[in-house]
Amino acid sequence: MHVKILGSAAGGGFPQWNCACTNCRLVRSGKFPGKIRSEAQVAISRDGRSWLLGASPDLRAQIEASRELQPREGTGASPICGVVLANADLDHVLGLLLLRELQPLNVYATASVIHILRHQNSMFTMLNRASDQVRWHAATPGESFELCIPSGQASGITCSPISLSARYPVYVSGSDPHLNPNEAALALVITSDSGRTLVYAPTAASITQPFREWIERADLLLLDGTFYSDDELIRVRGTGERAREMGHLPVGGEDGSLRQLAGLRIARKLYIHINNTNPMLNETSPEYRSVREAGWELAEDGWQAIL
Amino acid sequence: MHVKILGSAAGGGFPQWNCACTNCRLVRSGKFPGKIRSEAQVAISRDGRSWLLGASPDLRAQIEASRELQPREGTGASPICGVVLANADLDHVLGLLLLRELQPLNVYATASVIHILRHQNSMFTMLNRASDQVRWHAATPGESFELCIPSGQASGITCSPISLSARYPVYVSGSDPHLNPNEAALALVITSDSGRTLVYAPTAASITQPFREWIERADLLLLDGTFYSDDELIRVRGTGERAREMGHLPVGGEDGSLRQLAGLRIARKLYIHINNTNPMLNETSPEYRSVREAGWELAEDGWQAIL
Repeated sequence: MHVKILGSAAGGGFPQWNCACTNCRLVRSGKFPGKIRSEAQVAISRDGRSWLLGASPDLRAQIEASRELQPREGTGASPICGVVLANADLDHVLGLLLLRELQPLNVYATASVIHILRHQNSMFTMLNRASDQVRWHAATPGESFELCIPSGQASGITCSPISLSARYPVYVSGSDPHLNPNEAALALVITSDSGRTLVYAPTAASITQPFREWIERADLLLLDGTFYSDDELIRVRGTGERAREMGHLPVGGEDGSLRQLAGLRIARKLYIHINNTNPMLNETSPEYRSVREAGWELAEDGWQAIL
Repeated sequence: MHVKILGSAAGGGFPQWNCACTNCRLVRSGKFPGKIRSEAQVAISRDGRSWLLGASPDLRAQIEASRELQPREGTGASPICGVVLANADLDHVLGLLLLRELQPLNVYATASVIHILRHQNSMFTMLNRASDQVRWHAATPGESFELCIPSGQASGITCSPISLSARYPVYVSGSDPHLNPNEAALALVITSDSGRTLVYAPTAASITQPFREWIERADLLLLDGTFYSDDELIRVRGTGERAREMGHLPVGGEDGSLRQLAGLRIARKLYIHINNTNPMLNETSPEYRSVREAGWELAEDGWQAIL
């Protein structure tokens, strides 16, 4: 199974449009000891020809930076055949609207997330202007399903969604009876037909026991690395919410993901969905050193692996 | 008045993600005799410090390519102070959602377009999470107003919206009684305090008489150059709508905008919002030569002028 990281930053990317924090300012002056990143996005393929991915707002630039995602001939013949949504956050779903050019696509998400897109946001009707455009598939946490390509053929890839949070995005009305708290934010366990496993959790509020069991079996883990510390935004901006209040388990600290997963042997583990304020982006920082010394890597745009 | 073109392509940009037409294929092979383009977007400023712009989906990359639009220090201190929306097409409004980071902004659009965004698409509530975030201003076709910056100061720039089409985007329900047919698609006449005038019409179904009168007085015209011929999409894709059915007056042909405006003396005139299929993008084509010989230029990303 091919895995390609198209983007590795949290919502807004790095640098972020209205931010001149130390990280963003150093990037713009050409002096940052680290890498810029577009918004988190992972593409997977069994054969390197048909690809499934997420839907970040940076998708247009990400496709143009990835030869394997570009159509080879004709019009409407993209190698992108499907989209899997982990949650309804804007930085995870807006890219769907960039895929509106009458292309057959399978879209997988929980019934609650599909409801938010199709019934609370009329723009998503652009995905169903023609009969052979988007087919929506409702995923249920705890129930594995095989991803397919638009012809109806199996892709050779299985997805097992795990519920990680009951927190819906701020724009979603909390009183909507169609929303199941179990369906707000998923980790996606992606397994190839040879049994190799990617665990993708761009937003993880906690390490639940079922999630931990999947992590232990993963060949590749891509985990929420949004914030290094719980009070990072408050320290950088002088105001804001704590990481945990926003549904992100921080990387560092007494109860951060570094410590919580320290005892596990995971073949390869990367932090992804990294916010522009995160000090570990700076590769000369003590936070970067801590992460690397614990055997973690930082996801980077363009990173590839074959599982 | 400073005018900077951040993007000059129609929706989807050039090249387009699922298209391998002759233009797109040549770009990706590095052999295209012309320029790539991001989605249409124009930024204006009286003093070069506070900027007003549109809201294309490529806005993140467009800001990072434009030093003058980047914050200099602190967080939440963008020089972008306002957004003017000409219509509710996805390629004109999605960028608003990229500006959601608690930044004070003035947004100008017709009441109908504001209704579509705020009452048919819950995602736009992200723009009003805090009290000092987006202020929405309803613009009425035919009524000039002064654009302002968030502090409440006048920007020194006046906007006169002209109704150009009763066609709302496909995603908008035609039966909504809140939608005024006069408010679907605007040309924006932007006038500096010294009386210099930019006419911006990225989507023009026809050259109405009031529009023609504004054009005649313009120092700079940026006009809908989406399609060169009425049947362009059908010829390239084998299927699709005609340019006029989609609300775009074609550039060429007996009744195209080239012919209709041939008698006018306009100081400087550029085609913008150019679709990936448009043959005039190829600078060795007869269509490109026709346009240039008639005194027109093609808008390009990064183009700047001071009016």
